[in-house]
Amino acid sequence: MTYCVAIALDDGLVFCSDSRTNAGVDQISTYSKMFQLTNRQQQRFVVLSAGNLATTQAVIAKVKKDLQEAQATGLNQVTTLHEAAEYLGELNRNEQQKHNQGNASTFEASFILGGQLPDEKPQIMMIYPQGNYITTSSDTPYLQIGESKYGKPILDRILHPETSLDTAALCALVSMDSTMRSNLTVGPPIELMTYQSSKDEWRYNRFEKDDEYLRDLKRAWDARIAEAFQKLPAVSWKAEQTNK
Amino acid sequence: MTYCVAIALDDGLVFCSDSRTNAGVDQISTYSKMFQLTNRQQQRFVVLSAGNLATTQAVIAKVKKDLQEAQATGLNQVTTLHEAAEYLGELNRNEQQKHNQGNASTFEASFILGGQLPDEKPQIMMIYPQGNYITTSSDTPYLQIGESKYGKPILDRILHPETSLDTAALCALVSMDSTMRSNLTVGPPIELMTYQSSKDEWRYNRFEKDDEYLRDLKRAWDARIAEAFQKLPAVSWKAEQTNK
Repeated sequence: MTYCVAIALDDGLVFCSDSRTNAGVDQISTYSKMFQLTNRQQQRFVVLSAGNLATTQAVIAKVKKDLQEAQATGLNQVTTLHEAAEYLGELNRNEQQKHNQGNASTFEASFILGGQLPDEKPQIMMIYPQGNYITTSSDTPYLQIGESKYGKPILDRILHPETSLDTAALCALVSMDSTMRSNLTVGPPIELMTYQSSKDEWRYNRFEKDDEYLRDLKRAWDARIAEAFQKLPAVSWKAEQTNK
Repeated sequence: MTYCVAIALDDGLVFCSDSRTNAGVDQISTYSKMFQLTNRQQQRFVVLSAGNLATTQAVIAKVKKDLQEAQATGLNQVTTLHEAAEYLGELNRNEQQKHNQGNASTFEASFILGGQLPDEKPQIMMIYPQGNYITTSSDTPYLQIGESKYGKPILDRILHPETSLDTAALCALVSMDSTMRSNLTVGPPIELMTYQSSKDEWRYNRFEKDDEYLRDLKRAWDARIAEAFQKLPAVSWKAEQTNK
């Protein structure tokens, strides 16, 4: 499996992905699932991928090939992020159809695409295996692909469009930590990228398995959660109640 | 869906369940999923249920009927919790087979069974739709049925066999709160039961939707999580790193 999360904030974007790929428990490899793509207009796109590795690799390879074409095509000719998502969705669908001989779901892949194009705000889109896509809302400022349930509660609690880029990046890492702790098929290295819209500034970090900061974060969160627990109001028992 | 969790501790047992049942989003009802059953030897069993409502109701009805039989059968004749789980597993399998005409998974149900029988420590068992069952270990002192992923990380962080009964009960409620927040098909009333082995003491609480304690707990946890976040070490960016 995989876990990727992206967050769209008033201030910019956050992307976070794990790097574990598995086909059965005895075939586990490490592949990055975060791709940075720059077109001729020096516009940057970030793509996160989940699902069938052959499909995701083929789609990314095709995106890169299209960027090299003399004629403006693919990410070189899109003017909105919606168009970019439409393009990625089409590649995704086409790639699956090539190999599909009845068992369609085997080749399925999902993507998250993010970036900021002229006259648009920073946006993220989630592209389904069928090629259609959705974006965020102010109530749900994040998108997830892969093993998304374990890491969802912390996102629901912390994230709002007004959340700062740094807090959201931290929240993505904590969400990733919760997922890794509860699911073996999600694992390091962890990649983290942020985009601050006002400064047009991109930051990237790769945390290896033994990364000191990631270990500190995990330990600190464990300790803070334990502390937080101790401060919760004790269960109030109503002595008279009985269960049927 | 459903969310039920049970915890086996050195000190005793904790059970927690939601009460929402749905067959599609416009057919939502409230049914308790926590059943307390006492046999002729005054031994108490707690059963939590998830899955097809017709199956779970039929199984519980049969367990109760067997308890009334003149001849010692069912929970009246078991001497270990393993035997009780075996019995419940058989009822579960039989009930599904009655209605199964090809699409077996439609009628599937799962149960958690807990209690303490003479010369045994307090134990919990999870009974699969197939009728087989598992218990806990010191590394994994809890069992879940239903929509289990959202509420798992907090259990993994807090629970050990040495955890106190009160802390574990609180942890179950927080796990339930995380699940309700992220999944619409899990909802109140919330039922909570604990069993303290040394005192042979059972406690039960039912929290309605507007329960004051549950609301306080939710608010306190939100605030503590937000505080905990603010105390985490800020993301350490390694300026020289770049993503391919």
